[in-house]
Amino acid sequence: MIDLYTWNTPNGRKVSILLEELNVPYTAHAIDIATGAQMAPAFLAISPNNKIPAIRDQETGVTLMESGAILIYLAEKHGQFLPPEQRIEIYEWLMWQMAGFGPMLGQAHHFLKYNRGASDYAEERYGAEARRLYGVLDRRLEGRDYIVNDYSIADMACWPWVSRYEWQDIDLRDFPNVRRWYQAIAARPAVQCGYHVPDHVNEIPEG
Amino acid sequence: MIDLYTWNTPNGRKVSILLEELNVPYTAHAIDIATGAQMAPAFLAISPNNKIPAIRDQETGVTLMESGAILIYLAEKHGQFLPPEQRIEIYEWLMWQMAGFGPMLGQAHHFLKYNRGASDYAEERYGAEARRLYGVLDRRLEGRDYIVNDYSIADMACWPWVSRYEWQDIDLRDFPNVRRWYQAIAARPAVQCGYHVPDHVNEIPEG
Repeated sequence: MIDLYTWNTPNGRKVSILLEELNVPYTAHAIDIATGAQMAPAFLAISPNNKIPAIRDQETGVTLMESGAILIYLAEKHGQFLPPEQRIEIYEWLMWQMAGFGPMLGQAHHFLKYNRGASDYAEERYGAEARRLYGVLDRRLEGRDYIVNDYSIADMACWPWVSRYEWQDIDLRDFPNVRRWYQAIAARPAVQCGYHVPDHVNEIPEG
Repeated sequence: MIDLYTWNTPNGRKVSILLEELNVPYTAHAIDIATGAQMAPAFLAISPNNKIPAIRDQETGVTLMESGAILIYLAEKHGQFLPPEQRIEIYEWLMWQMAGFGPMLGQAHHFLKYNRGASDYAEERYGAEARRLYGVLDRRLEGRDYIVNDYSIADMACWPWVSRYEWQDIDLRDFPNVRRWYQAIAARPAVQCGYHVPDHVNEIPEG
């Protein structure tokens, strides 16, 4: 049994989607970041950076923070979505998501969605970076169904960030390869379950 | 032989430091990001996100972008600085660096060093986030010599970002555990070589 500490955010959904894809039993614990639940000492003990998601694996005793590390841990443990022959290439794109696509879209959410008017300079900066990053992903998906061969944790890492395209002032029709990939993944039953963890707050955007 | 495409930045230095620690032969190719060399088609073919560092392993034909993936690849290949029994914990802190410590300090460099006055709001935001992240690292290093047991790629990922503490308005004396760790690593011969790749542009800051 996996304890998943999460909230309805892209990083949280990466892990709930993988758990649904793996069909392993887990309990989702809501960490409401709007009320500061991520600062509680019991949570900090497993996630010293005070961010969701985090897990505790009751079987092995392992606790982990950082969605990228959690995806690797779970995919390795269950031998799915991280095939040995593509492992390094999957790490490459997982790192691209963790280091760029996620953090920079997070800044876009901050300035374009939650704090409009705080800084024209930052709105322009992160809006432009969002478009650049979508361009990188669109070129990568040209002629490919998934980011690296078959559906993998690299796709599961990127997809939830794309699902917030509206917050990023992105029109997916400008990125047709991303849009095709996004809609194909959105149709997966495990994604349709994992997206609504811990709570159902909205439908999956159509793309 | 490894071809390393790099520049004198924290992400580039992670890889040159690891290569020096491993004592494997490599050729450093300077990609001068000030002149836009990262947009040349030959570079984009191995680094589609147009960022340094990237490598080509002449022995295996593997090309890779993303410093975090490169660190894992090289550490695995040579069986050093990523011991199997700590692997997942090293991934956790490597991901913390890749997803938070690096990208947010990068924003601090942008607003606090290169574009002072562009946005008071962003200066405050990224200055505060830098201090928060140094606090997380300082607590992690309390009573530990290195981030995860012995010196590992987690330390090599974080250290070059700390070496720009002056750009981040950080006084390392406020973070005594980070300062002790920073100075211990700065004293390593491999770090003293790897820091000055591809060029010697300044001495390693004292801390």
